[in-house]
Amino acid sequence: LKRLEELKNKAKNSGKKMMAVIKAEDESVLKAVKNTYEEGIVDAILIGSTEKIKTLLEIIEFDFKGEIIEESNPLKASLIGVEFAKKNKVQILMKGLIQTKDFLKGIFTGDKALTGGRLLSHVAVLEIPTYEKLILITDAAMNINPDLEQKYQIMKNALQVAKILGIEMPKVALLSAVENVNPAIPSNLDAAVISKMAEREKLKALVDGPLALDNAISKEACEHKGIVSPVRGDADILLVPELISGNILYKSLVYLAKAKAAGVIVGAEVPIVLISRADSNEIKAYSISLAVLMCDGK
Amino acid sequence: LKRLEELKNKAKNSGKKMMAVIKAEDESVLKAVKNTYEEGIVDAILIGSTEKIKTLLEIIEFDFKGEIIEESNPLKASLIGVEFAKKNKVQILMKGLIQTKDFLKGIFTGDKALTGGRLLSHVAVLEIPTYEKLILITDAAMNINPDLEQKYQIMKNALQVAKILGIEMPKVALLSAVENVNPAIPSNLDAAVISKMAEREKLKALVDGPLALDNAISKEACEHKGIVSPVRGDADILLVPELISGNILYKSLVYLAKAKAAGVIVGAEVPIVLISRADSNEIKAYSISLAVLMCDGK
Repeated sequence: LKRLEELKNKAKNSGKKMMAVIKAEDESVLKAVKNTYEEGIVDAILIGSTEKIKTLLEIIEFDFKGEIIEESNPLKASLIGVEFAKKNKVQILMKGLIQTKDFLKGIFTGDKALTGGRLLSHVAVLEIPTYEKLILITDAAMNINPDLEQKYQIMKNALQVAKILGIEMPKVALLSAVENVNPAIPSNLDAAVISKMAEREKLKALVDGPLALDNAISKEACEHKGIVSPVRGDADILLVPELISGNILYKSLVYLAKAKAAGVIVGAEVPIVLISRADSNEIKAYSISLAVLMCDGK
Repeated sequence: LKRLEELKNKAKNSGKKMMAVIKAEDESVLKAVKNTYEEGIVDAILIGSTEKIKTLLEIIEFDFKGEIIEESNPLKASLIGVEFAKKNKVQILMKGLIQTKDFLKGIFTGDKALTGGRLLSHVAVLEIPTYEKLILITDAAMNINPDLEQKYQIMKNALQVAKILGIEMPKVALLSAVENVNPAIPSNLDAAVISKMAEREKLKALVDGPLALDNAISKEACEHKGIVSPVRGDADILLVPELISGNILYKSLVYLAKAKAAGVIVGAEVPIVLISRADSNEIKAYSISLAVLMCDGK
């Protein structure tokens, strides 16, 4: 895929999914739900303060016909969503007006935990005007300082997303500042090890690192420096070594390279939508569409 | 200043400076020297293998009238440059075909060391089409994992560059992934401390952090999130917590936001030019111009 718009079209054709919105009393969240609800991409169950939700539905003129469940306690609201997911009553969870940590607590804890002990990670899908195809960035939003094994899992989570986007043999760049395996930069050692792990495990992906960003996304830079790499300036997935560099990369692309982005949290039994208040309605709809597609990709 | 072109014009008017090029037998380096030499911005002393240098001068049709000094040993060549700088025979040093570590060894070692014990750091000046003014990024090229005091010095080095660019009261954003002072992200604590240090020391700058990139460079994002900050989406200087995030930021802007960049190493007794082979001739000339301006700013 080259454009995020195609994500939405693909989601429309994939069959409606049911989404639980945890603490739905948030105008920006309800607007995003409205957009995809009206286009027939999702159905929803809204969990939270019924009164506030109804008031907001009126304000944004959202003629919502689905179920609204009263639960003002954030953690309890989150646990209701998790239970629905367990029972397959919903196929997607979405975060509303609730602290991320409370939201995730519901997902991680108790015998109803949705993670099965797996690591959750955030995968962003970006459409950058100066890059010829969609590119995935992970993890720019969730894991602060992943260790080697966690990075490997973060990569595998991203490969799931690449698969549902139809990328047959994704090229994964394990980013750093330089290409040499310099022991002074510990994340470079991780990158070298992950490359080899991917090779030994015969992952269906071309994984290479450490790579500086220029050699991950520019064929010209790669040739100029004489770098021999299966990624060769044509990366599908950029794996960053830790949260700060990921977050800075993501935001530099959105704000200064005018990229559009969708995002989803992967690794739990259902895909999780966690949008940022600052996201445009368009981006929010793309993120929900991405989650819808993830339901089919399991 | 809004454009890097202005740097070059300003350098032209500031009076010619003498630059020593260490191991000058490199075509891409000599081309950069040629460009600024012919425009009357610099004079140069070329140190290295005379024979190779002369051959290259012919190939690139560079009618060089200055001094060429024979010294094929990299460290010795570097030490000759340092001696010239000490004697004020040259006002700028430029790295040629020499490993960065050998080049810097000459600058750091011996009683002729050019650093006076100060930390050297790289400052990049970028012209980004989507940002309304020049912006400085530091340190995206030299210090891998600076500690608190080193970051403070890196910031002060960048303030020197801001001053010669005519920025009266630079707004400095200490970058991270989030604004809250989260102890799980140690660099956020450093950022908080540096903000307060700058305030107490009454630095002529508006320093604030931790800030995520969006709140450093977008007024809209700042208002949206209700962030109160003296930087307020209008940063002049972006200080990154470590090399990888800086390098990724720099390269995402150059390759994907189509930014132009100049760079200089600050902190030694003379400014140091260290260009990348992948830089365009234009960028190389901007970097030399920046170094020329730094000579006057001391």
